[in-house]
Amino acid sequence: MTAAAISVFGVKIEGEFSKGDQVADRIYDACVEAGVALQDDDVVVVTHKIVSKAEGRVARMTAGDWAARDALILKEGATFIRRNRSVAITKTKHGFICASAGIDASNVEPGTVTLLPRDSDRSARSIRSRLNHLAQVDVAVIICDTFGRAWRNGQTNVAIGVAGMLPTINYRDTTDSFGTVLKVTNIAIADELAGTAEMVMGKAEGVPVAVIRGAPVKRGRGTIKDLIRPASDDLFL
Amino acid sequence: MTAAAISVFGVKIEGEFSKGDQVADRIYDACVEAGVALQDDDVVVVTHKIVSKAEGRVARMTAGDWAARDALILKEGATFIRRNRSVAITKTKHGFICASAGIDASNVEPGTVTLLPRDSDRSARSIRSRLNHLAQVDVAVIICDTFGRAWRNGQTNVAIGVAGMLPTINYRDTTDSFGTVLKVTNIAIADELAGTAEMVMGKAEGVPVAVIRGAPVKRGRGTIKDLIRPASDDLFL
Repeated sequence: MTAAAISVFGVKIEGEFSKGDQVADRIYDACVEAGVALQDDDVVVVTHKIVSKAEGRVARMTAGDWAARDALILKEGATFIRRNRSVAITKTKHGFICASAGIDASNVEPGTVTLLPRDSDRSARSIRSRLNHLAQVDVAVIICDTFGRAWRNGQTNVAIGVAGMLPTINYRDTTDSFGTVLKVTNIAIADELAGTAEMVMGKAEGVPVAVIRGAPVKRGRGTIKDLIRPASDDLFL
Repeated sequence: MTAAAISVFGVKIEGEFSKGDQVADRIYDACVEAGVALQDDDVVVVTHKIVSKAEGRVARMTAGDWAARDALILKEGATFIRRNRSVAITKTKHGFICASAGIDASNVEPGTVTLLPRDSDRSARSIRSRLNHLAQVDVAVIICDTFGRAWRNGQTNVAIGVAGMLPTINYRDTTDSFGTVLKVTNIAIADELAGTAEMVMGKAEGVPVAVIRGAPVKRGRGTIKDLIRPASDDLFL
């Protein structure tokens, strides 16, 4: 049997996260516990939920209280893009188009919700820096959330923060197998990695971290802004 | 070192595909050649390009001839959703929202383009049935293409046909780690699997197939229609 090109490890972390917790330290300990020895060029994908909790990005809100939710969306500095019954599609201060500014009542104490990290790239950089120090490696880090999409049913995990990698792989200027220059192919690999990670995270099972080994990631100083299409270029805003 | 939860194998296939080729037979031979022994519950992700070629879904068109492209889009039975300079966002007969009805000038002989399979679920079922017979296993099959998205830069691979699996995993009615009922989580796992596969396929390197092992796929008679949001429910059409 040939070796896998890409391997995905789920990392379970016991116990809750609360404000002030050192996320990278707990990830590192959990990797050791799980027998996942981090290596150079691994991509460590972290659900934003534990980052938000550790950063104190939690607010009081009753699930299903739409007025309270709308007030919180505005307090987060997000704007409404579309509204339909209970659904509010918003643009966050980071530039993400997602439901309810990312406010989320799942996997958090009843009566409270998590908010998105204020600066998810900075959160990713901070986790990466500490993880690299603890494990003496050079990994990339992605912070992810679960977003819906236009036109397609179902949600997928996408990247909302990156560190140590470029979130896209650009095939413009390269040629295909017939020598044709590929003009428009720019793969959002950070989103594909986030989606891959979702499959080992599940939705309720205490696996907030995935380690992905072997992906064709380009290392560098990427930012999540590279994944946000400017409104002036967007045909659906 | 603990075992990976999910393993992804790339399967290289030598030589071009043309009308009448038996896709499943060539995939099976290539798996044997690559040392990837198919197992029950593997997901075999196949780029639509080789399926389209084998089904004769190729047309003459010069890349960059927008008038010819628009004529071909209409001939395919697609409708225009948005247009902007050279970009045409369309809705295909299958219901996919994508650029140029999926017409693609990459990795095909210059002067020709590939079209999407007419019935990509049927193509997937046919490949699955033959693969299961040849390998004496029970796998799921996804046919994928590379689509752009609203709001986010970069393309990702998504599913355009499925066989032997449900394209979504529904977490409605399940509870999270605090006992809260998860109301809206319905993960488009077929799209996450397609995105995962893209990372081993590259864009020009003759790897049209990925085998994904260990993903939490629900087996069953799924259809790609499960991933298409009805226009009446869509806020961005």
